[in-house]
Amino acid sequence: MANRIAVDAMGGDNAPLEVVKGSVEAVNEFGCDIILVGPEDIIKSELVKYKYDITKITIVNATEVISTEESPTAAIRKKKDSSIVVGLNLVKKGEAEAFVSAGSTGAVLTGATFIVGRIKGIERPALGTCLPTIKGKFAFLIDSGANVDCKPNYLVQFAKMASVYVENVMNVKNPAVGLLNIGIEKEKGNALTKEVYELLEQTNLNFKGNIEPRDIPYGEADIVVCDGFDGNVVLKLSEGLSGVLMKIIKAEITKGMYKFAAMALLKPFKSIKTQFDSEEVGGAPFLGLKSLVVKAHGSSKAKGIKNAIKQCKIFVENDIVKKIEEQL
Amino acid sequence: MANRIAVDAMGGDNAPLEVVKGSVEAVNEFGCDIILVGPEDIIKSELVKYKYDITKITIVNATEVISTEESPTAAIRKKKDSSIVVGLNLVKKGEAEAFVSAGSTGAVLTGATFIVGRIKGIERPALGTCLPTIKGKFAFLIDSGANVDCKPNYLVQFAKMASVYVENVMNVKNPAVGLLNIGIEKEKGNALTKEVYELLEQTNLNFKGNIEPRDIPYGEADIVVCDGFDGNVVLKLSEGLSGVLMKIIKAEITKGMYKFAAMALLKPFKSIKTQFDSEEVGGAPFLGLKSLVVKAHGSSKAKGIKNAIKQCKIFVENDIVKKIEEQL
Repeated sequence: MANRIAVDAMGGDNAPLEVVKGSVEAVNEFGCDIILVGPEDIIKSELVKYKYDITKITIVNATEVISTEESPTAAIRKKKDSSIVVGLNLVKKGEAEAFVSAGSTGAVLTGATFIVGRIKGIERPALGTCLPTIKGKFAFLIDSGANVDCKPNYLVQFAKMASVYVENVMNVKNPAVGLLNIGIEKEKGNALTKEVYELLEQTNLNFKGNIEPRDIPYGEADIVVCDGFDGNVVLKLSEGLSGVLMKIIKAEITKGMYKFAAMALLKPFKSIKTQFDSEEVGGAPFLGLKSLVVKAHGSSKAKGIKNAIKQCKIFVENDIVKKIEEQL
Repeated sequence: MANRIAVDAMGGDNAPLEVVKGSVEAVNEFGCDIILVGPEDIIKSELVKYKYDITKITIVNATEVISTEESPTAAIRKKKDSSIVVGLNLVKKGEAEAFVSAGSTGAVLTGATFIVGRIKGIERPALGTCLPTIKGKFAFLIDSGANVDCKPNYLVQFAKMASVYVENVMNVKNPAVGLLNIGIEKEKGNALTKEVYELLEQTNLNFKGNIEPRDIPYGEADIVVCDGFDGNVVLKLSEGLSGVLMKIIKAEITKGMYKFAAMALLKPFKSIKTQFDSEEVGGAPFLGLKSLVVKAHGSSKAKGIKNAIKQCKIFVENDIVKKIEEQL
């Protein structure tokens, strides 16, 4: 089966340089076919810096760019020649099997839902983000921000799609599903979680019950299911806290007489930073669409782009869409 | 004005020893009047260990204890001679001005609402928790877990009560109020936050707009307003992440050759731990009731109990209930 991945060359803080660099690395490391979408001249001037199999990268011209400041819906509607819209249309037309963008999250999600379209039977597509855990593996948080007002059945579908994805793309057999909640007992939580708990019990998923936010970093669940508002709170708080704690610790240990100790610790600190490095994962898959769209982090560098492309490759090779349809 | 603080001698993991110890410390440091509630003999056998002004501590007998495993509503109804119910009734009858307990959160909140009762006009009382920030000050998160399904007006009232509390008890002039949200722009968030944003704009509070979870640890707002489910997610995730990160860092720096560096760092690590020490704050005030009830952390030691008592003292001295009534 063909495996062409369309990549938004203009999306993200480090575009086009890091996007093109990451795409070339993907071609050199995994041999996939990439379609770089954006202004032709700009892309060509970046590509000329690298050595790679030139049959593997094509360019599709797109003259407009959607910025993160623009209203997503309006931008998708108006900027028909933007790298995001053109890229998504390649997928829709079957000229690419997946799309990667580090651009405006709102525009990518809105555009993807509208242009690529949902798998039949899926109420709402959802964003899944990998959170690092102390066990060295990841917890897959879904929905991490696409749907801010959810009905119970949406969350059940999130859990089903995530189980297929985590088992096949992340190689975790029979992934443990936890429902994000503020207490362990079944009766805990709000109206939404109480209803979702009952529904999840009735599925054939490996549902472990409620998982409290404090237990996520300990790897208590492979999949954490929640509404998009709560998921985004968890995601953003994790990012903020990690940053603050590392700052505080650095500040404390570089005080005066501890400088010698601080120098010795640069290596372990780097090691920790790598564990929490979102570049390792390479973006959040938007599950529930007829084709995979991966939203790479806005600050993605080449490694993040490369890993986002890798996700798409494995997803397509494993025919995840078909497996999700079977789960429903 | 009388300032007698009833304290649940049997609440929490370290009761009665640490509770009695903390109460004695409060008497010795601030000279307040304490009523220790619980089995008389047990309390007496603890008190005998200490030197303090004996006119300042009285005992009110209570033979039952509500455990954290019991259903709160059932326990409050059945165990009329529990330290929690007896303590709350002292406040209701006007024999104490405030109540502190490190016991079952559900029972304390349910009991307080039912027995002490709400300030007229308050829809829902809310729990406020101080989160440490990099600026060395605290962010007051309200509602941190009492109300899991909120109407917009509840949050507006949370913000008003918190402003009175933070200004008068925590001495922050004109505290900045932020609405917990997943984006900065006014249109971001779910149905609840969009409506609350509009309502908060119409108040005379120092409303700064939305605050993203990642910005809370940076001290961007003095007060963070949210629904109790989201607040509890923020609270519990903060606790979990701090714990995990400290563990990872300790593990990394104690590997092999870094041991000498690790020894040198014990002091700075301790310093960081202190900054994040919930014992410094001493519990979460439950605002909106006719008298103050402070829920001390279940793992409270003497310092935490002492500081919870201190909160009550300042609260009563500053007539916060009256000031909240004026705000409404």
